[in-house]
Amino acid sequence: MHVLIIGAAGMVGRKITNALLANPAIDGSAVTAMTLADVIEPAKPDWPAGRVDTLAVDLAAPGTPGRLIAGRPDVIVHLAAVVSADAERHFDKGYTVNVDGTRALLDAIRQAGESYCPRFVFASSLAIFGPPFPDCIPDDFAPQPATSYGGQKVIAELLVNDYTRKGMVDGISLRLPTICIRPGKPNAAASGFFSGILREPLIGQEAALPVSETTRHWHASPRSAVGFFLHAAAIDTEALGHRRALNMPGLSATVADQIEALRKVAGQDAVDLIRKAEDPLVAEIVAGWGGDYNATRARELGFTAERTFEEIIKVHIEDELDGAAPTAEVRV
Amino acid sequence: MHVLIIGAAGMVGRKITNALLANPAIDGSAVTAMTLADVIEPAKPDWPAGRVDTLAVDLAAPGTPGRLIAGRPDVIVHLAAVVSADAERHFDKGYTVNVDGTRALLDAIRQAGESYCPRFVFASSLAIFGPPFPDCIPDDFAPQPATSYGGQKVIAELLVNDYTRKGMVDGISLRLPTICIRPGKPNAAASGFFSGILREPLIGQEAALPVSETTRHWHASPRSAVGFFLHAAAIDTEALGHRRALNMPGLSATVADQIEALRKVAGQDAVDLIRKAEDPLVAEIVAGWGGDYNATRARELGFTAERTFEEIIKVHIEDELDGAAPTAEVRV
Repeated sequence: MHVLIIGAAGMVGRKITNALLANPAIDGSAVTAMTLADVIEPAKPDWPAGRVDTLAVDLAAPGTPGRLIAGRPDVIVHLAAVVSADAERHFDKGYTVNVDGTRALLDAIRQAGESYCPRFVFASSLAIFGPPFPDCIPDDFAPQPATSYGGQKVIAELLVNDYTRKGMVDGISLRLPTICIRPGKPNAAASGFFSGILREPLIGQEAALPVSETTRHWHASPRSAVGFFLHAAAIDTEALGHRRALNMPGLSATVADQIEALRKVAGQDAVDLIRKAEDPLVAEIVAGWGGDYNATRARELGFTAERTFEEIIKVHIEDELDGAAPTAEVRV
Repeated sequence: MHVLIIGAAGMVGRKITNALLANPAIDGSAVTAMTLADVIEPAKPDWPAGRVDTLAVDLAAPGTPGRLIAGRPDVIVHLAAVVSADAERHFDKGYTVNVDGTRALLDAIRQAGESYCPRFVFASSLAIFGPPFPDCIPDDFAPQPATSYGGQKVIAELLVNDYTRKGMVDGISLRLPTICIRPGKPNAAASGFFSGILREPLIGQEAALPVSETTRHWHASPRSAVGFFLHAAAIDTEALGHRRALNMPGLSATVADQIEALRKVAGQDAVDLIRKAEDPLVAEIVAGWGGDYNATRARELGFTAERTFEEIIKVHIEDELDGAAPTAEVRV
């Protein structure tokens, strides 16, 4: 089995790659080849058991989709995107990559011949929804994107559905929660603080909290995100019918819930590193995001995520901090 | 005020043109110029009071959108589309016209300069929805198109919303019901019989009924459709916020309701011209369509449609049969 990961140099792409290297199988079939593509060439892993090709490509450039599928990958994981703030600032860039790039990829698959119908796992986002929200957002809530990024993701989902209905691809779109705790340095994303208020204190550093502690949001760990993609690569898609977009499960938690979990796992000293620094702009952006989803369809199909924020923190400590945070009180 | 109608040679386009010729005003402003465009050159009406340009253009051809908006129309009515069955058969053609053509038009408007922000009234369709349906479909029901045409219309709606949110256009998308009674000859559309079982008997001809009399559907007259577009051209769109797509009002009626209305208006002799001729394929297609919508938002915004099928039949007799059907018993 041959797996193509587009956007393989990103955080989730690298984790999916590593998961497949550690356990090179999908639904009982051995993974024997991987193609890793991104705008910058992904690191080439040492994998004696299989073949890895790495590619630096611009998805939106003519010819790229054909090159990507030249090896007829059985599973395509499509993570490449112009992210939210960038798509909002650069209107054409967002549409060119997020819509046209995805469509060109689907067209290349279609044009590769009738017998080629790979599993196509598309990274969508819960940013396809916009306010006003009910307390708990049902699976069939109508997408009303509040950003160009959200609109572009819905459009791509509609393409995945239609190409799938026509038998051109076997698609599935995963509407991802906010990934928390996102490893690495603090970044400029409006959602960054959800990770920052845990990640920084766990290594003894201060973190700013720009919103109220009552702010509710929908989270899943990077480990869960990897699980979503690998599960989507493996499941029987017959049960999905033509509705190939799924709200991914997660954990609905307030900032206060996050802080309480940090206290339980890493103690009051860690919590004391969180500094309130209200930012009305961030608060306004975050108010446009849903805080709770039932994700019933996805759960019934076997997609799983954490059930407590302690779990999410422990996953971070295991996967990113070698099992122990530098702060003295951590108990995993 | 300058009005551009794209798809002006079609049934609805001609009726909108005629309505504006009869009453050349939108929201109190005089209409002094019209540009009528279609793939075949629309008939040039005699209009001493204003200027009419007619254009034969392919919307999807490079340069067409720029030509269409060269005169900076204040109101653009965009009716041009590859219709449902055609888009289902010809995959690329549907996307090229219904998606790319609409996007190219929006881009031409955007690139015309910041101060140009015309009202853009887009003909969408209730075909954006797919089964399973609740008994009465609410305004915020999630689009799950069952056809490429439906998917293309949702994508275009998302573009209209996003370009509007960005201040590039002042867009509004009208999700149209089935237009009944559609004037003219019987055609091959699966929905054709909804009009045919009334239109043909009213002129003393037989008509085939391919589905059960319990089949429920959502109808509005051509006169109502014209009203939707002219109302959408005139209303204050502030009240819509960023949610620019509206389910248009209509009349929920079963085939039995239609037949009973025909009996009331044109007598049993007319009803006797309806021949049952079950067609499982048509029945299956029709089962994929919604039969009742609340259309609350649109009604609150002042969009109106018929409330009884007798009204719909009488509108047809007035507008298409010079006020009297040839069958003896007609009482308008």
